[in-house]
Amino acid sequence: MRIIIDAMGGDNAPGEIVKGALRAKKELGVELTLVGREEDIRACLGGENGVEIVDAREVVTMEDDPSTATRRKKDSSMTVALNLLRDGKGDAVVSAGSTGALLTGATLIVKRIKGIRRAAMAPVLPAGEHGIMLIDCGANVDCTPEYLLQFAYMGSFYAKKMMGCESPRVGLLNVGTEDTKGGELQHQAFALLKQAGDEGRINFVGNVEGTGVFAGAADVVVTDGFTGNVLLKGTEGAISFMMNALKGVFYKSTVNKLAAAVLKNDLKAMKKSMDVNEVGGTAFVGISKPVIKAHGSSKEAAFFAAIRQAVAFVNAGVVADIENNIEYMKLKAES
Amino acid sequence: MRIIIDAMGGDNAPGEIVKGALRAKKELGVELTLVGREEDIRACLGGENGVEIVDAREVVTMEDDPSTATRRKKDSSMTVALNLLRDGKGDAVVSAGSTGALLTGATLIVKRIKGIRRAAMAPVLPAGEHGIMLIDCGANVDCTPEYLLQFAYMGSFYAKKMMGCESPRVGLLNVGTEDTKGGELQHQAFALLKQAGDEGRINFVGNVEGTGVFAGAADVVVTDGFTGNVLLKGTEGAISFMMNALKGVFYKSTVNKLAAAVLKNDLKAMKKSMDVNEVGGTAFVGISKPVIKAHGSSKEAAFFAAIRQAVAFVNAGVVADIENNIEYMKLKAES
Repeated sequence: MRIIIDAMGGDNAPGEIVKGALRAKKELGVELTLVGREEDIRACLGGENGVEIVDAREVVTMEDDPSTATRRKKDSSMTVALNLLRDGKGDAVVSAGSTGALLTGATLIVKRIKGIRRAAMAPVLPAGEHGIMLIDCGANVDCTPEYLLQFAYMGSFYAKKMMGCESPRVGLLNVGTEDTKGGELQHQAFALLKQAGDEGRINFVGNVEGTGVFAGAADVVVTDGFTGNVLLKGTEGAISFMMNALKGVFYKSTVNKLAAAVLKNDLKAMKKSMDVNEVGGTAFVGISKPVIKAHGSSKEAAFFAAIRQAVAFVNAGVVADIENNIEYMKLKAES
Repeated sequence: MRIIIDAMGGDNAPGEIVKGALRAKKELGVELTLVGREEDIRACLGGENGVEIVDAREVVTMEDDPSTATRRKKDSSMTVALNLLRDGKGDAVVSAGSTGALLTGATLIVKRIKGIRRAAMAPVLPAGEHGIMLIDCGANVDCTPEYLLQFAYMGSFYAKKMMGCESPRVGLLNVGTEDTKGGELQHQAFALLKQAGDEGRINFVGNVEGTGVFAGAADVVVTDGFTGNVLLKGTEGAISFMMNALKGVFYKSTVNKLAAAVLKNDLKAMKKSMDVNEVGGTAFVGISKPVIKAHGSSKEAAFFAAIRQAVAFVNAGVVADIENNIEYMKLKAES
């Protein structure tokens, strides 16, 4: 398997990106294509051989307009990497660059799976027995009921193959658990998901509240990208707020400091287990070939985890699952 | 000042409700009207005198349809309490009963402030320098840009008078901080809030992301009730998830248990400082007289805090602020 790496994307590129990639080569046995400024990449390789480098002179930055970046910067590492994937020169792309640019680029260059209306950003939260997929988390601010139906199917396939859920429980994010909760989008999506559940195609467990997400009320939480994005970032903020408060307690006095020192390793392990970056990157579900977004602040370990996820994604055949079921995922044109 | 208490609302009614009310009578010097089954209330009073009791035979429960409960149960403690407030027999209502029923009842019986399109549920999160108001958190699933403009003004007045913010920073909850982020609702609301900011009527600081909420990027975070509800409950769930993980660390070994025992009191204080119930109840902003919702699980301390908030709300004159500025809060009818 060959993984195409956008070596220039992210806050710590190319150094940490190349490090993570080389670790994946060694530990996972993947072949690498590193895309970016050749001289910069070579400087990071430390004489390592057997790595393909594809030169690309430009870099997509956070200042670039995400909707036009990959088109305007045709010689950027991101654009060139996506072109290589489209042309069959590798099995997956992993990038820590701009989320919006990568998503737009993946959609324009690699294209969506035929019949899929919108690709979704679907991170897996480190909670519950198998992790919890939140789909969508920001790719699509405005959603139709059909998008949400497709997210439900795609998330279900992903959870089954990638998260080890035998029969993934799919929930619709809402303001209450009763069937009638929410607005027009939720009412219509609920009806579609219920029908898919009744037909035995997904395991729909109904509406899930915000409190239910981390409590593991569902394995796949379906939502529009606006709400999902706010929820994801909001919980990230709340946890970070609490971590700071905790730090305040630990440093409050000498006695506290000593007690905290005893707990230090276990707390570190806990923090690590809750770190979304440790799970890997975020899959763009619905794109016709695997494109994985690593966190922008990725260092070696996080980027390695994202590549590991890309490998699993390729092996799992989630794209084929979606293609084989696309007829159930489309609304009939109104007669 | 006389506070009208729905003595039968909440999981711990009437016992803990009456206890919290009596504490408020003693410590805050308020007069009390306790509404509910007289014999049940008397049994909780322990011979305490100087408390008015208004008998009401029914109770609004969580099983009642919120949209019709106060109308159908005309002799419920909630309905009678709201009628007393409307008729000027007290200065505020405090209830730990069904949120939806109380909001509908307040809107139908006490009525909104003239010109206000929708009342909002606006809890104050225990973060930032003065707390952070999230408006709306579930009263209005579907919102128009005008609703959000009104939430911004109402939140701003509240934060100034109730939270001690000199010039409350008003932010619009969005998927990014750039001005152009979000969907149609956010684009239109942004333009209205920016205009109000440019005219010096509110201190609009632009878009705020989920991560920014707990980081204190704004004192008043404006959003539709769907997103606000998911965010509020989602962060509640995330914090509770983390608390459990923390407990796991503390109980992991005898050594850890000993270390945790040292930190116990400071951790308790931290937990308390982050407890939304300690701040008091949630104000229904936009209703013509103060109606405060206490948490359904309120015990004495939380219910006392909700009454304390009602007293502050009455004294602050937030309703008058809104009435005096209503002209700026309405969109001109399209010509």
